[in-house]
Amino acid sequence: MADPALIVGSLISPYVRKVLACCEIKRVAYRVDPLVPFYGNERFEALSPLRRIPVFRDDRTTIADSSVICQYLEDRYPEPRLYPAEPAAAARARWFEEYADTRMGDVFVWRLFNEAVIAPSVWGKPRDLESIARTLEHEVPEVLRYLERQLPSDGFVLGELSIADISIAAFLRNAIWARFEVDARLWPRTAGLVQRVFALPAFRRLMPYEDIMVRTPPARQRAVLAEAGFPVTDEGLAADTPRRGPMSV
Amino acid sequence: MADPALIVGSLISPYVRKVLACCEIKRVAYRVDPLVPFYGNERFEALSPLRRIPVFRDDRTTIADSSVICQYLEDRYPEPRLYPAEPAAAARARWFEEYADTRMGDVFVWRLFNEAVIAPSVWGKPRDLESIARTLEHEVPEVLRYLERQLPSDGFVLGELSIADISIAAFLRNAIWARFEVDARLWPRTAGLVQRVFALPAFRRLMPYEDIMVRTPPARQRAVLAEAGFPVTDEGLAADTPRRGPMSV
Repeated sequence: MADPALIVGSLISPYVRKVLACCEIKRVAYRVDPLVPFYGNERFEALSPLRRIPVFRDDRTTIADSSVICQYLEDRYPEPRLYPAEPAAAARARWFEEYADTRMGDVFVWRLFNEAVIAPSVWGKPRDLESIARTLEHEVPEVLRYLERQLPSDGFVLGELSIADISIAAFLRNAIWARFEVDARLWPRTAGLVQRVFALPAFRRLMPYEDIMVRTPPARQRAVLAEAGFPVTDEGLAADTPRRGPMSV
Repeated sequence: MADPALIVGSLISPYVRKVLACCEIKRVAYRVDPLVPFYGNERFEALSPLRRIPVFRDDRTTIADSSVICQYLEDRYPEPRLYPAEPAAAARARWFEEYADTRMGDVFVWRLFNEAVIAPSVWGKPRDLESIARTLEHEVPEVLRYLERQLPSDGFVLGELSIADISIAAFLRNAIWARFEVDARLWPRTAGLVQRVFALPAFRRLMPYEDIMVRTPPARQRAVLAEAGFPVTDEGLAADTPRRGPMSV
């Protein structure tokens, strides 16, 4: 392939993390335009009609949905396999990806991380501590109860590593920045799985850059990532002020 | 295969329609438990953790997400193909499915159909006519503008019939019950595509039963469908009163 693929989106996003982890595992070369969520301009919207990140672009296509991107990477770069070959096992892997993208996204990103990190940093709003406490008391244990019933005590969800493991761990990574970690005494299977996924070279390579992003103000993020040696680019997709889109209301 | 597959969910749902259309096209035998949205009991919730319909069950698996079900049907019953073989074309087909499931679902089902049909029939609430008017004025044209730029003037989105066409048409079918039809003078490509998909035997076979569902009160739907010759079953998944779930707030 001529050029590295372009991935538009902040390394803080679990949806971006899924795609970067798949690229790392499949050794697909990439560069990232670390667009801050909500800052996309009109050119960004032309690439991503729902104003979602990540956007993936290579020599053949442009795709603006993380699950569609991961499946495309699997179809174009089949090795190592991240979707089981047997149809029912593949369906189970895709179900966990969907559960992570929607329910874990709702609880850990929109309710928890959004209130604790995005509200003050992007929108300049104070943290709603009562809302955070309610989420920690109700929704978070409900999700963890479900996962704990489904996950294995050892290895990965479908035996071999798959998109299921990558997705679940990608969302729990964001919870950590909102100061929530899965307690291994209460939720041993979930905590164990997350630990095994976080120990993968693909996740370990991304983590220091993600941590840089969380502690750097938006305006400085691209420069600081570049200084740290991460492959960044600037495609001119950022507006001066954040705006809400169809999917972020 | 020994028994027909079980599909749980009302024929009114566009997500159920996608799955039934795939079964019809691939000649996968099925029976339906026409559970009214929001009426699932605890046993239903054990099958569908997000309280979503449809749920699909066959001799190998149980799946509670329409996109995962359609991909499973493709993997297990590859002919006729509903996902293009070439990775970038397959990604484009999956993108339109995702766009339909989320953005068209939001606009045509949650805002339009929900206000016009579900609010009075399930929740006993009056129609919010102002909200319906706002949706028709803003969100509906925005979606149709996007589709009009993307769709072909003839044939199907990816050339051959694919999950993209099925998904887009499945959602616009619900708009009709909320008294909205795509005006062919304003949106000729979208109107033409929908017409071609509605003319497929798979859609034509389902339509009369869908119309029965819309005009029959929930308590009578299963009996009336059975009398009309549709393959129904009762798996005992309905509660006495509707309730909201994690995905329906």
